[in-house]
Amino acid sequence: MNAVAEVLPRHHRSPDIRHMANALRMLAVDAVGQANSGHPGMPMGMAEIAVALWGRHLKHNPADPDWPDRDRFVMSNGHGSMLIYALLHLTGYDLSIDEIKRFRQFGSKTPGHPEVGVTPGVETTTGPLGQGLTNAVGMALAESLLACEFNRPGHEIVDHRTYVFVGEGCLMEGVSHEAASLAGTLKLNKLTVLYDDNGISIDGHVEGWFADDTPKRFEAYGWNVVRAVDGHDVDEVSRALQAARESERPTLICCKTVIGLGAPTMAGTHDVHGAPLPADEVEATRRALDWTHAPFEMPSSIRALWDAREAGAAAQDDWQRRMEAYRRVFPNEAAEFERRVRGALPANWRDVAHALVHDADRARQSVATRKASQIAIEGLARALPELLGGSADLTGSNLTRWKDAVDVSASPAKGNYIHFGVREFGMSAVLNGVALHRGYLPFGGTFLTFSDYSRNALRMAALMKTRTVFVFTHDSIGLGEDGPTHQPVEHAASLRMIPGLDVWRPCDSVETMQAWVSAIDRDRPSCLLLSRQTLPFVPRDEAQIDAIERGGYVLADWPSTCERDARRVVLIATGSEVALALAAIAPLKDEGILARVVSMPSTTVFDRQCNAWRERVLPEGVPRVAIEAGVTGFWRQYVGLKGGVIGIDRFGESAPASELFAHFGVTTSALVDEARRVAA
Amino acid sequence: MNAVAEVLPRHHRSPDIRHMANALRMLAVDAVGQANSGHPGMPMGMAEIAVALWGRHLKHNPADPDWPDRDRFVMSNGHGSMLIYALLHLTGYDLSIDEIKRFRQFGSKTPGHPEVGVTPGVETTTGPLGQGLTNAVGMALAESLLACEFNRPGHEIVDHRTYVFVGEGCLMEGVSHEAASLAGTLKLNKLTVLYDDNGISIDGHVEGWFADDTPKRFEAYGWNVVRAVDGHDVDEVSRALQAARESERPTLICCKTVIGLGAPTMAGTHDVHGAPLPADEVEATRRALDWTHAPFEMPSSIRALWDAREAGAAAQDDWQRRMEAYRRVFPNEAAEFERRVRGALPANWRDVAHALVHDADRARQSVATRKASQIAIEGLARALPELLGGSADLTGSNLTRWKDAVDVSASPAKGNYIHFGVREFGMSAVLNGVALHRGYLPFGGTFLTFSDYSRNALRMAALMKTRTVFVFTHDSIGLGEDGPTHQPVEHAASLRMIPGLDVWRPCDSVETMQAWVSAIDRDRPSCLLLSRQTLPFVPRDEAQIDAIERGGYVLADWPSTCERDARRVVLIATGSEVALALAAIAPLKDEGILARVVSMPSTTVFDRQCNAWRERVLPEGVPRVAIEAGVTGFWRQYVGLKGGVIGIDRFGESAPASELFAHFGVTTSALVDEARRVAA
Repeated sequence: MNAVAEVLPRHHRSPDIRHMANALRMLAVDAVGQANSGHPGMPMGMAEIAVALWGRHLKHNPADPDWPDRDRFVMSNGHGSMLIYALLHLTGYDLSIDEIKRFRQFGSKTPGHPEVGVTPGVETTTGPLGQGLTNAVGMALAESLLACEFNRPGHEIVDHRTYVFVGEGCLMEGVSHEAASLAGTLKLNKLTVLYDDNGISIDGHVEGWFADDTPKRFEAYGWNVVRAVDGHDVDEVSRALQAARESERPTLICCKTVIGLGAPTMAGTHDVHGAPLPADEVEATRRALDWTHAPFEMPSSIRALWDAREAGAAAQDDWQRRMEAYRRVFPNEAAEFERRVRGALPANWRDVAHALVHDADRARQSVATRKASQIAIEGLARALPELLGGSADLTGSNLTRWKDAVDVSASPAKGNYIHFGVREFGMSAVLNGVALHRGYLPFGGTFLTFSDYSRNALRMAALMKTRTVFVFTHDSIGLGEDGPTHQPVEHAASLRMIPGLDVWRPCDSVETMQAWVSAIDRDRPSCLLLSRQTLPFVPRDEAQIDAIERGGYVLADWPSTCERDARRVVLIATGSEVALALAAIAPLKDEGILARVVSMPSTTVFDRQCNAWRERVLPEGVPRVAIEAGVTGFWRQYVGLKGGVIGIDRFGESAPASELFAHFGVTTSALVDEARRVAA
Repeated sequence: MNAVAEVLPRHHRSPDIRHMANALRMLAVDAVGQANSGHPGMPMGMAEIAVALWGRHLKHNPADPDWPDRDRFVMSNGHGSMLIYALLHLTGYDLSIDEIKRFRQFGSKTPGHPEVGVTPGVETTTGPLGQGLTNAVGMALAESLLACEFNRPGHEIVDHRTYVFVGEGCLMEGVSHEAASLAGTLKLNKLTVLYDDNGISIDGHVEGWFADDTPKRFEAYGWNVVRAVDGHDVDEVSRALQAARESERPTLICCKTVIGLGAPTMAGTHDVHGAPLPADEVEATRRALDWTHAPFEMPSSIRALWDAREAGAAAQDDWQRRMEAYRRVFPNEAAEFERRVRGALPANWRDVAHALVHDADRARQSVATRKASQIAIEGLARALPELLGGSADLTGSNLTRWKDAVDVSASPAKGNYIHFGVREFGMSAVLNGVALHRGYLPFGGTFLTFSDYSRNALRMAALMKTRTVFVFTHDSIGLGEDGPTHQPVEHAASLRMIPGLDVWRPCDSVETMQAWVSAIDRDRPSCLLLSRQTLPFVPRDEAQIDAIERGGYVLADWPSTCERDARRVVLIATGSEVALALAAIAPLKDEGILARVVSMPSTTVFDRQCNAWRERVLPEGVPRVAIEAGVTGFWRQYVGLKGGVIGIDRFGESAPASELFAHFGVTTSALVDEARRVAA
């Protein structure tokens, strides 16, 4: 007897349930077949789990995917994307059957992996395994913090849950450890994870490479674990979901399933994981499931079973009434809540931003830019109650904590500063989840070199356009004695290559303020690369201060009266090397070379400026030399083949910082030599 | 009563033990003080654990740090570097007291974090947390595989253990999950981890951010866990180490310790973690420990207690005798073993390499380069028994497995193909550990986009110069429907920025063979970026075949007779775009533009060629256009500001691959347009 014959009849006592689950199966099978690409196994295996969650527990309104108090649903095993598309389609989201037919086709709302912003109802972009789960931890954290901040006795305007589907792949990934450990520590009890325990990953049966006792592992994290649930028994899954609601800890529901259940000869094998079913297997599946409808044909009776529009509208109406009651008693809080979940900045934001930058200019402080960043955070925290900070166990080094910050504690999680522990990747993906949830403006710190650990979360932030701020201190060999493992040399350049990620490497307190302001101003993620060591304050005129936000601008210029045929050179510098460039002006002048210094705190922002601005800053025909304590190849796109670049194309060394700059030749005198060469 | 007074007398029953432990403490305190930089807390807290392991269990010979059968010792919490330097110095390695005095100074053998190749006795470079542990899993795995391969009944020439020190930081990192889960699955019973459970990380007492039940977590991985060991009781630690020897599973010994023990007012706090003790605390520590010796002064009586030279020489002599006995019975195996642990390639390697490349040239196969890579692996595996492969659960996609490969199984671990599970970072750091152990030539595969997950391990491979081969398939938008999460656009460029990492993106079967040959030829890590889709075979003459190893060469040229003032252009391409460039020659010729096509499978290798070669390939003054399905800024260093670059400066889309190339304009016609523009 095959798996379908064995398993299905046992649990599908109700024809309705059978129809609902099989509708998911067949949409997945047919869409993957039509695309000739995709992953049928997971949707077929998790169909009953989806019926239990989406049919009986999930609070959502298909007409308003942005309803702030909706439950969040994250499919961390994103390759099973047809499952969520089928669910969104059937429950009544704006996702037509035509879109299902265009699964994985150019410009459709049904891309290969779920993408937030593309498909209504998709909460986060998943596919890179483990990160969906980690985003969900961020969402559950945001819910808890927001509830503590805004709810009042008798007024629970924030009260929703976060549900996650995960497979073995997510649980093998290291980031699952960081996420689950943090969720357990913070006792995020509204987080429920449904584990699709089918014993199969792409290479086959997992016992040869994944022998964890996963329930025990999650108990070790302090989770509530529901073991050995039959994932094809909707009632049993539903009971576990009910039990999760009563737990004071996050819950892992371990569902035993058969991958690809419904496919008579392929269910339970890895062949069903990531490729269309062969045509004969599709037909056999139809027969086994007693599914008599043509591909993409869905009887109205089954549609009616799935339709969540009425219940969803009622749920949101009820919330809206409660929100109005809240507004009557707490009008200011209600307005603030709505601003926050809309992601809008306060009305006085422009003044705050202006003051932040200009106060720094007036203060003329020479400080490490990590210290300037802390000053920025102090100012921002006063104006932006949504600021939510943290560090991956480097608070005193990253200087990410402000004076009035409240450490986030558990039961329930509340506060606005998160000690993330040594979990760089987890932190970054949690921050993305917080940003996606809305209500907070999250940032987190670590050393720049460890941006490597979280690199794919930075990429995902850029892909999802989340407003997440990554504070990366100790930004070069300038960190000194900790040596090459801790000294980034390639990181600034390589972060700048991630499309849509803004990277700032400010040279002093004023540029640091503007970097923070720009990071908060934009609907995209930003990385702030900050020095460990003190950097001198640079005086600027008003126009220069205004120009910082353009990413690159003239910080010191040759005389406007200088002859057209004078020997001229443009020196381009970032961060700690700007002072070296400024110091080169005088010796060059002594040699009859007129130098302009361009400060380029953000190449990514500069690249987006209009041609006119870029040409004004970097006039054609004038030779250029760039200086940055990092890899040189990157700078050729600004200086050309004939220009000069002073930098470091090897790993650093353990020694005091000043010795290192001298040793690696990142010095004013090297810059002068190079400027002389190119200006010749 | 302070911590020193409380804890030390209770356990230091033996004055010898007290002196040995305090010698470590005071060397750390004084060296950190002299450097005015470093981490005294860990060495002071782990001193007794170090006495137990290094004084009673570790098999090593200070006179020969390369002895193949030595135990491996990895300090994964690398910030406590002064502990290993003190141990190496005191046991008799070539590490003088002058080097200890120059801790963290330029050019010393005692850098801020332990670096393999810099300090004799340091097995791997640590500092980036969690990776030392993971390297150690690789070492223990290599030991097991090597023992299975070479030991014969009565001849145990491979029989050593791997010991690791870890702190909370390592255990919070996600990669510790991947490493420990894999080690448990493979039952690496000769791996013993000593956990410095002091309850402190940089941000303070860990309970607010790290509440795992770590013993339970490791039991869930199938480890043998020794709980609640007093880390300041040498006898108790030693008993646990003895128990570990008898386990059939890897062992975690949980040692309760006091960080900074010995510092009267600061022990047990995070203030002692990462900064020199204040001068008065140093003096108070001396008094508390009853240490009457001046800084860096070590009485000969204590030196004698630590000196491991005699015992080490005897141990190695014994092994050498057993090796000779083995050689008498198994002369071929002995010779092969010695070749392998030396890291030398077989005598016929050059012929093998030549045949691999030329066979591919003769076969003229048009295949995906991932498929070409599999053909390479088949050929290499026949000639190189040290080849040890694997994939992070993408075996069928990466095509990393060869026909006669034997899947690595447990108890004991044996075989030559590792199903790593979905653990990209863990895989990469394990591969580094295998390479450091010697005896195998390791490689592992995943999708290029997930190189992000393992990025810091790639960097560490480059820093350590390990011969590790990273097989990254599905190298561009060419993977199609899986969409932007799976489509690398910035990865090729950003990997090329890691100093010392060779990156290859071959265009056909022949270049793929050479990429593999070069990867194996060099003492450095290589990344092979391979296509999912079929790429056409390119015919070459003998000189062109020979030139591939230079990283960039002329694949198709303008007529040698062409006029100096003819309109000419150099087209530079890599991987799947080489065919697009070749196809541009004819249409350009029709317009009177003579095109040279430069295939640039490895910019990193090309950059190391002499000026003459680079100028011959890219002649000055001829305009250039580069084409690569990735970010464009990178290519400016080859084409200059006036040249052209065809590429993709945004994230991809989910759609069939051919549509994507057209949509993003990575086409021959776009290349022709750009060539026309620059050649004008």
